[in-house]
Amino acid sequence: MKKIKKKVNVAVIGARFMGKAHSNAWLNVARFFDLPYEPVLKMICSRDGEDYNKNFAENWGYAEHCDDWHKAVDCKDIDIIDICTPPFLHKEITIAAVEAGKHILCEKPVAMNYHEAYEMAEAADKAGVLHYLNHNYRRVPAVALAKNIIDEGKLGEIYHWRGAYLQDWAMDASIPLTWQLTKELAGAGSHYDLASHSVDLARFLVGEVKSIQAMLKTFITERVLPGESEKGQVSVDDASFMTAEFENGAIGSFDISRMMAGRKNYNYFEVYGSKGSLVFNLENMNSLQYFNADDPQDLQGYREIPATLTGHPYMSAWWPPGHIIGYEHVFSHAVKDFLDALAGGNKIEPNLWDGVKIMQTLDAAILSDKEGRRVNVSEVK
Amino acid sequence: MKKIKKKVNVAVIGARFMGKAHSNAWLNVARFFDLPYEPVLKMICSRDGEDYNKNFAENWGYAEHCDDWHKAVDCKDIDIIDICTPPFLHKEITIAAVEAGKHILCEKPVAMNYHEAYEMAEAADKAGVLHYLNHNYRRVPAVALAKNIIDEGKLGEIYHWRGAYLQDWAMDASIPLTWQLTKELAGAGSHYDLASHSVDLARFLVGEVKSIQAMLKTFITERVLPGESEKGQVSVDDASFMTAEFENGAIGSFDISRMMAGRKNYNYFEVYGSKGSLVFNLENMNSLQYFNADDPQDLQGYREIPATLTGHPYMSAWWPPGHIIGYEHVFSHAVKDFLDALAGGNKIEPNLWDGVKIMQTLDAAILSDKEGRRVNVSEVK
Amino acid sequence: MKKIKKKVNVAVIGARFMGKAHSNAWLNVARFFDLPYEPVLKMICSRDGEDYNKNFAENWGYAEHCDDWHKAVDCKDIDIIDICTPPFLHKEITIAAVEAGKHILCEKPVAMNYHEAYEMAEAADKAGVLHYLNHNYRRVPAVALAKNIIDEGKLGEIYHWRGAYLQDWAMDASIPLTWQLTKELAGAGSHYDLASHSVDLARFLVGEVKSIQAMLKTFITERVLPGESEKGQVSVDDASFMTAEFENGAIGSFDISRMMAGRKNYNYFEVYGSKGSLVFNLENMNSLQYFNADDPQDLQGYREIPATLTGHPYMSAWWPPGHIIGYEHVFSHAVKDFLDALAGGNKIEPNLWDGVKIMQTLDAAILSDKEGRRVNVSEVK
Amino acid sequence: MKKIKKKVNVAVIGARFMGKAHSNAWLNVARFFDLPYEPVLKMICSRDGEDYNKNFAENWGYAEHCDDWHKAVDCKDIDIIDICTPPFLHKEITIAAVEAGKHILCEKPVAMNYHEAYEMAEAADKAGVLHYLNHNYRRVPAVALAKNIIDEGKLGEIYHWRGAYLQDWAMDASIPLTWQLTKELAGAGSHYDLASHSVDLARFLVGEVKSIQAMLKTFITERVLPGESEKGQVSVDDASFMTAEFENGAIGSFDISRMMAGRKNYNYFEVYGSKGSLVFNLENMNSLQYFNADDPQDLQGYREIPATLTGHPYMSAWWPPGHIIGYEHVFSHAVKDFLDALAGGNKIEPNLWDGVKIMQTLDAAILSDKEGRRVNVSEVK
Repeated sequence: MKKIKKKVNVAVIGARFMGKAHSNAWLNVARFFDLPYEPVLKMICSRDGEDYNKNFAENWGYAEHCDDWHKAVDCKDIDIIDICTPPFLHKEITIAAVEAGKHILCEKPVAMNYHEAYEMAEAADKAGVLHYLNHNYRRVPAVALAKNIIDEGKLGEIYHWRGAYLQDWAMDASIPLTWQLTKELAGAGSHYDLASHSVDLARFLVGEVKSIQAMLKTFITERVLPGESEKGQVSVDDASFMTAEFENGAIGSFDISRMMAGRKNYNYFEVYGSKGSLVFNLENMNSLQYFNADDPQDLQGYREIPATLTGHPYMSAWWPPGHIIGYEHVFSHAVKDFLDALAGGNKIEPNLWDGVKIMQTLDAAILSDKEGRRVNVSEVK
Repeated sequence: MKKIKKKVNVAVIGARFMGKAHSNAWLNVARFFDLPYEPVLKMICSRDGEDYNKNFAENWGYAEHCDDWHKAVDCKDIDIIDICTPPFLHKEITIAAVEAGKHILCEKPVAMNYHEAYEMAEAADKAGVLHYLNHNYRRVPAVALAKNIIDEGKLGEIYHWRGAYLQDWAMDASIPLTWQLTKELAGAGSHYDLASHSVDLARFLVGEVKSIQAMLKTFITERVLPGESEKGQVSVDDASFMTAEFENGAIGSFDISRMMAGRKNYNYFEVYGSKGSLVFNLENMNSLQYFNADDPQDLQGYREIPATLTGHPYMSAWWPPGHIIGYEHVFSHAVKDFLDALAGGNKIEPNLWDGVKIMQTLDAAILSDKEGRRVNVSEVK
Repeated sequence: MKKIKKKVNVAVIGARFMGKAHSNAWLNVARFFDLPYEPVLKMICSRDGEDYNKNFAENWGYAEHCDDWHKAVDCKDIDIIDICTPPFLHKEITIAAVEAGKHILCEKPVAMNYHEAYEMAEAADKAGVLHYLNHNYRRVPAVALAKNIIDEGKLGEIYHWRGAYLQDWAMDASIPLTWQLTKELAGAGSHYDLASHSVDLARFLVGEVKSIQAMLKTFITERVLPGESEKGQVSVDDASFMTAEFENGAIGSFDISRMMAGRKNYNYFEVYGSKGSLVFNLENMNSLQYFNADDPQDLQGYREIPATLTGHPYMSAWWPPGHIIGYEHVFSHAVKDFLDALAGGNKIEPNLWDGVKIMQTLDAAILSDKEGRRVNVSEVK
Repeated sequence: MKKIKKKVNVAVIGARFMGKAHSNAWLNVARFFDLPYEPVLKMICSRDGEDYNKNFAENWGYAEHCDDWHKAVDCKDIDIIDICTPPFLHKEITIAAVEAGKHILCEKPVAMNYHEAYEMAEAADKAGVLHYLNHNYRRVPAVALAKNIIDEGKLGEIYHWRGAYLQDWAMDASIPLTWQLTKELAGAGSHYDLASHSVDLARFLVGEVKSIQAMLKTFITERVLPGESEKGQVSVDDASFMTAEFENGAIGSFDISRMMAGRKNYNYFEVYGSKGSLVFNLENMNSLQYFNADDPQDLQGYREIPATLTGHPYMSAWWPPGHIIGYEHVFSHAVKDFLDALAGGNKIEPNLWDGVKIMQTLDAAILSDKEGRRVNVSEVK
């Protein structure tokens, strides 16, 4: 018989794309996974207006809705605050929330810069709460499988990382100057939005970046202000190309852009080691390519592993082998692991400290671009 | 503001793989789609025992559970009966349900043979209820897109169909003699289980089959009886290879087997016409390949369309372009269209009459295999 | 130091596509391979006219040219006759040539029907000459590798063959009624031209076909007579779809057509066994896909082997690993093996007896199509 | 009737991998293409010893052989000198040859550094001879097609280049310290050997590089001296990762390494513009991927164009559509264009001045790596 579980109350801040994806994860994770806690959708907070929030709450089954995130922080009943806002709000919400004793899920990029991230992580640790940063692609089964393969030594010594995160939506010059294209609200453009994911995966699979050099570029420099006919200056990058040396001696690249015609959500990486290599592409996220240099000489080749097989990370919860999962399932994996960590008193990765390292790397890259030189990540402090 | 919707009460019969997939669809469809009715999970019926059913009901939020499907049929409150049992029960449940005025969703294969299917369809029509047969792959966005392309005339006159449905689970000789491998419970093996899907897609995209010839084969002829050490005779096919002539003059093939090492859920087709062709593979279900013979001569080639773009069938409900959906989303599409049809007083396809045509085609193939000759589908009557 | 080699004199009959490909092979094979004989291009015979032949001879370095193949047969100096004519001439030339003691290379399809093929093979054996039938795709390195993998038992017991040979040139209704589209000159259409290759590969990799059923079809039934404005009847098939049972119990399919938009030279096969499977596509002929069911469960997947690696058949003669070969190299492999067999006094495969078996299979399929029944290959005699 | 052609006499210097590939090209180009001159293989010069040279000459039909390239330069009969030696000899041979009035084909990388390249180009122009630098991948039909697509404006404004040239042979630590791994003989490692190709393609397709930043790395720092048991220091890079800004504003990357397990000859690029994008991979060199942003919204996707179709560059000389060519055919295309330029009194590209620009770019990258800063290409002078 199913055990009666302790409930944990969740408030989600932000009710757009990420608010929807997180709500879905909180709702369906208990249907598919065996959990130590039963998550309850207690409160949705967003600045999208009363009607929007009411509908959102009804749709996803939230008990309450409000337009001010402070209410969630102040609410005694809330155990977990899940931050799905633009980056400029992350620090303020996080610090208020952890000081109120709430556990934290935070969307990426973690903050507006390295220093904000550091403050957030320190505050969370001081408060003794669980904190998780939603670089969710670590929990794509194919990526988790890649991590297992590397940890088992199957790639040997790592020589190279080749990462890319390519989209094409910013090519449309008629797109207005939304928060994503505004430095004051997003911190940076593709460099924070997309590169943060790629750097997270590189750190996950290869290790810390030691030094970096970067070229950032804005191709479309003016855009219409939202709801107006006037144009304003785009204050963030459209593209960021970087090369990096890792602490373990590997060298690698990050090609990041939102101006890549034909690429929709092409979060791609290759990892090369002395014994083999791996290739992953988020647009075909249910498979992983693996080259094993120990295969017999005449039978060597990249094999395409469908990451839907018995024994693959997270997959036993879903459907039989060969039945793929979609984009949003990965959020359920994150929520599941978060609740497990909460129950076990363990940490979870990536967390705010990973955010600190990611921002340190990305800010070193910004410095490199500005000064036209190779920058040690440790220079950012 | 969200409109208050009339509720419709659903009973699901069968609580294994399909019961889970259908429950999930009923539950999440209202979160993503705008529906005319709000489906309520009223009752789950299965013969898996009290504890199993209780857990299943709790997990998916069913108000009631029982071990006898007659209770669902007899229950006044139930509007829709969703049949997820093995095929040998489909006819009995369907006829009882429609006579009780219930609307019907029925899993595939529709029945144990052509005659059963015919009885079911007649009974449903006589009762005036809505009926839907869950050949769900029509509602994969890439397949719905294929249908649009063909209907717009972009392939011209259709010359060829090349269908395959390949799996490899039956290669494991230690798998016991479950209902899937027993003629009395499943009707046939891969020929009903998998070929029914491929024939449905061929009828959807090309048209009716006129004549057919087939070779069926059982490779592993004995298997251990479930829970016993003794072996029993496998009474169904492992593989079914067919060639077919369509009423519109196209000729095609169906390669069907559960003995194909490396194929997990490889429901694959190619359609060729005078102006272009299409290729689809369920294992990579979020894309469709399209060859346009009207492209400039030196720029012709198969293009891989990610079926996640703005304007693609069903996709606006889910995530932004480039974010893929998984296997189970297709069930949500079916449920959504079912509820729309119910509200509009329209029919939905495929329905029990499609099941009749599919079974007629499959039974013609069985006759062909038996008699070693080409059989007109109309001979089965 | 290079050894002085005995020369062998070659006459090629036919100076179009195949004449060109064979001439190139005879010319370049000695540059790349170590051969027991040095082939000398002695004579080109074709009915393309004096000027054409003279140019052809000059271009490829033939000592002589003529418009009558009997001159080659009558010429004492000629050791090898290489037949590149349309099929309706194969029997007559072959029998004359072998009776004159010439060794034979013959293009495919071997003949106009099973009986012609049988006569040819008997005559060649009686004359005691070496004979080779140019189903050259056996000597694509990736296909030779496939054969090795199967012979080493790596696929286990073979369950299935899935062959296809798809082109699209016949879709162009303005193509005139050339010999390829005329039964009296070609014997059959795609069924002889393309299916003969696919049946050869199936026999090579799986074994003999025991029984077969087929559907042949002509989509464009009338075409302009060459150089005229009048139309004539197309007397051959555009497409041939077959299912087959092999003597070893495997069942398989052959999908053959010249009406497949987007397919240029798509000679494709899949072979499935109890331990793995293989996939090959001539359009990407420098690679072979291999699925090994003995790989660790969570690392299983099709691996794409570049058939250009050290140790791969024929490849050491060409370029370093990763440097691909083209379509015509395969003819060089055939010529090399032919000369080796000649020097060693061995037979070579495929030869005219393989042609006999292929024609028996194809003619059984024609009978099946005509009579609408499954035909045992042994019925053709 | 074939016209009698003026003969041009060719001397090839170097008789290893490149000597073989060039000899084959000179020999077979006249069989497939209509040429203004008939090339005659007059002399092979190499330091591989009398026996080796004699065999090589016999095999490829050279009239003479020698061990001193000065003989070729001094020989009045020689019209063309084709330099296939390691880079450290390029300058000396080129300058001597052009001063003797010979036309020049030169293998890549052009020289040991920018200054040598500049001297060579100046000397050749001063001598008024034709010079060609063999960055042969421009003449892969798929690459030539890419160039056409870009020149026709089909990609619009170019935003991004993503180039890579990946091999894995240097991963084998037992490979001795050959000339390729010695700075004094090769100039640099992967950075000259492979990056020169990728930079050539970037200049061909996108334009000149304005500024660059690079990280070079040697992973295996000691190797056995050839034929000895002692080890020596590897003096060249194994890998070179670069980001670049182009003069037209595009930004791009070059990932270059000989330590990439599973990659044999992976010369790969992507070009992205405002209207579409292209993808090419030398390991699958007979196809080009093309994304057209002007396709109807719901039918957009990368199309894989088989670069073997009617109208594709160079392909009419070879085989029918769908029949692929191999690695060495591209050398024939170069020789063909060289002879055409010679007859027409035109220049050919790439030539030694392209070599100058490539070396300037690569040497700027070396400076960047050394000084840890972004370097303008114009700083190298």
